[in-house]
Amino acid sequence: MTDLLPELIEEVVDAPKMGEYESVAGVIAIQAASDTALLLESLPIAQRLSTWEMVPKNKRLDVLVHMRGDPRETLIDAIDSEDWDGIFSDIEAEQLLELADSLPSKLVDRALVSMDKKQRQYFKDANQYQDEQIGHWLDHDVLVLPITAKVRDGLRLIRRGVPHHMDTIFLVNRAGQFTEVVRLDNLFKSPEHVPLVDISEERIDVLHAEDDCNSAASVVQNSVFTALPVINENNVLLGRVNIRTACELKNEYYERQVMATAGMDEDEDLFSPVRKSAQNRAVWLGINLLTAFLASWFIGLFEATLQQVVALAVLMPVVASMGGIAGSQTLTLMIRGLALGQVTKSNVMSLLKKEMRVGGLNGAVWAVVIGIVAWMWFTDPWLGMVIGLAILLNIVSAALAGVVVPVVLDKLKIDPALSGSVILTTVTDIVGFVTFLGLGTLFLL
Amino acid sequence: MTDLLPELIEEVVDAPKMGEYESVAGVIAIQAASDTALLLESLPIAQRLSTWEMVPKNKRLDVLVHMRGDPRETLIDAIDSEDWDGIFSDIEAEQLLELADSLPSKLVDRALVSMDKKQRQYFKDANQYQDEQIGHWLDHDVLVLPITAKVRDGLRLIRRGVPHHMDTIFLVNRAGQFTEVVRLDNLFKSPEHVPLVDISEERIDVLHAEDDCNSAASVVQNSVFTALPVINENNVLLGRVNIRTACELKNEYYERQVMATAGMDEDEDLFSPVRKSAQNRAVWLGINLLTAFLASWFIGLFEATLQQVVALAVLMPVVASMGGIAGSQTLTLMIRGLALGQVTKSNVMSLLKKEMRVGGLNGAVWAVVIGIVAWMWFTDPWLGMVIGLAILLNIVSAALAGVVVPVVLDKLKIDPALSGSVILTTVTDIVGFVTFLGLGTLFLL
Repeated sequence: MTDLLPELIEEVVDAPKMGEYESVAGVIAIQAASDTALLLESLPIAQRLSTWEMVPKNKRLDVLVHMRGDPRETLIDAIDSEDWDGIFSDIEAEQLLELADSLPSKLVDRALVSMDKKQRQYFKDANQYQDEQIGHWLDHDVLVLPITAKVRDGLRLIRRGVPHHMDTIFLVNRAGQFTEVVRLDNLFKSPEHVPLVDISEERIDVLHAEDDCNSAASVVQNSVFTALPVINENNVLLGRVNIRTACELKNEYYERQVMATAGMDEDEDLFSPVRKSAQNRAVWLGINLLTAFLASWFIGLFEATLQQVVALAVLMPVVASMGGIAGSQTLTLMIRGLALGQVTKSNVMSLLKKEMRVGGLNGAVWAVVIGIVAWMWFTDPWLGMVIGLAILLNIVSAALAGVVVPVVLDKLKIDPALSGSVILTTVTDIVGFVTFLGLGTLFLL
Repeated sequence: MTDLLPELIEEVVDAPKMGEYESVAGVIAIQAASDTALLLESLPIAQRLSTWEMVPKNKRLDVLVHMRGDPRETLIDAIDSEDWDGIFSDIEAEQLLELADSLPSKLVDRALVSMDKKQRQYFKDANQYQDEQIGHWLDHDVLVLPITAKVRDGLRLIRRGVPHHMDTIFLVNRAGQFTEVVRLDNLFKSPEHVPLVDISEERIDVLHAEDDCNSAASVVQNSVFTALPVINENNVLLGRVNIRTACELKNEYYERQVMATAGMDEDEDLFSPVRKSAQNRAVWLGINLLTAFLASWFIGLFEATLQQVVALAVLMPVVASMGGIAGSQTLTLMIRGLALGQVTKSNVMSLLKKEMRVGGLNGAVWAVVIGIVAWMWFTDPWLGMVIGLAILLNIVSAALAGVVVPVVLDKLKIDPALSGSVILTTVTDIVGFVTFLGLGTLFLL
């Protein structure tokens, strides 16, 4: 359980001192693979590698599958070539799909060779769809019967076992096309000779393999069924997406979004090697540096003014910061609305109006507050007026940019969670500095 | 389905022009409550209210339950007093728990009166636990049998119906204490006279009512079962948490985190009234203003220097921005690690070391780049050296603060996702300005 993780990490870290390897190995042996994955991710690399050796051989594949990309790769790099046969001995298509991005292509080929023909086909089929399409992530543990089947056939089928997170039987016609579902519990209420179609459900959401992962995951999470059928463009049943997979997809989506706001991806390793980590982050720093230099260039236009009114230099961060914060509030609200499909061309104008009114109101309030503080601080009413006006203009244009930037990025199929904030900050910095220093030049010289 | 939402929003918004009320009402009638909730949230308030009238009476409660707090309240305020009896006619404890924060206490009392005794008791029981404890969010749709029951009893029970997202029967002893579970599909494989304890599962995670919601939701999502039992401190079975509830809790958790980074809460309404929205956001702007003034105050200490070397004023944003970005990367990684339970006192020192090394490496690289640019721009090698040093120091201290700030906040039980970034920016701004202007005073005057 996640709750015990911190204690376990301490135990592992202290094990070398205490000679307690065995108790750690004991815990790992009975732990869920997802928890072992979290544990390994939390360890500095040397300890991660030694702890990996304690993971029972038959659990290693599952643990790798549950790990995030970067920490997983630190293990993959260290695994001996001959050990892979053991790890791949029972590998299924879905597991290889999860690992494929972290594996050298040679190892992917080795895994494919050790798979049976059916699994290899599943792997190939899934790869016809992109990462962000649900067809890439479906599984094949379905209960499926022909549309002519009776309750008796259904009972016989489930006596052979029900896959996890499956509460229905999917019915297909002769062409393999999905037609409807029967809830398992309805089987027990009906006589054995009743055709399954007579007790099928009225309505179930059906996913298309090309559907976007994240929307498909929402549909599954909102469904009363624990798994939904996935079909191709000819309505042929390909497999299912169960609610557990939906949770994983959704969690990854959110994690990606949170990490994207800092210019990182969700695979970032707590303990990645210093050089790799520095490289990962350098791109984002570089992009932000360009925008910061751009802002500096605009400030440079007002060197003469700054020289005469140093108070402007002192107060510059206030103008930039207020615009940045106000803009990021609007931006965050917009990004959520876009992700939920709630922002469309028919309501975006109303949203823009509302956000600009909010900006106008907050802008006016804070303009007065900041204007008075600046006036008192530098005993100059004109400076108060200048900064007040600049704050008002900057907060209002932050609201404008906060609505327009993510909508435009979304139209261009660029993730607004990743690049929205840089662009927005550039806008608010430049508008803030130019209005503040420009008004200063007009009124204070 | 979420995919169709944008089209539906357009249809609703255009309906008044087109006279197409009926087709909209038709869609809403067959739509899932969660989708109708998303739709209503996406509409400006006037349209939201008129669309609400089209929601079939028997779906209204469910739609309210699925809405976010603020937009839900705009509807609650507009619902006629006499309509509540209809809405509350079949209300269950879990639904009222979801709504309670948005309802005036008078309406909560009315809902309680219309509930049957058992549901009222469930409501009271749940309120013994905090919002962030799983005991507040459990449901009571469980299949439960005494530990002495046989397969035959199990079959009889499920013939009466299986609740959604339930794939086991919970067994309890005479004292009502949870003992074990039996998978439903095992019932069909065993003769009727076999005691259920003989075919029970070896291992299932059991949740405690006081457990933290978010960790409990993770445990459910990682389980092979679709619902886990929840017990109190005496091991008495209270109910269950199913995976669908776990998904909702987890999604809310992530949404709260994303919104918190901009100082908003997850209940924020796309179309809240301007004044309310301005008020919601003003607090965050105010807090950030204080930190911005603090930074200004530090800049003010160097007024004399700025007057003589205007280039320092021009380049200030570069120093502050690089520190802020580098710090927010470390902070974001730390917040995720803390949330997953991966950051503990035993690995925090290794993390700090690693982050400071990453900061040192990136700091050095960017110090050189920025130093050269500044030197060329202002044709002053000393200025290049000053800004390079300031960048290096600021990025390293940003790494330090990025590790220390969230760990300290977490210890103080303050959400680092909400306040981490303000504190961090304050640190990087002040360190950046003071080192840059301080070094400037030393070397450039």
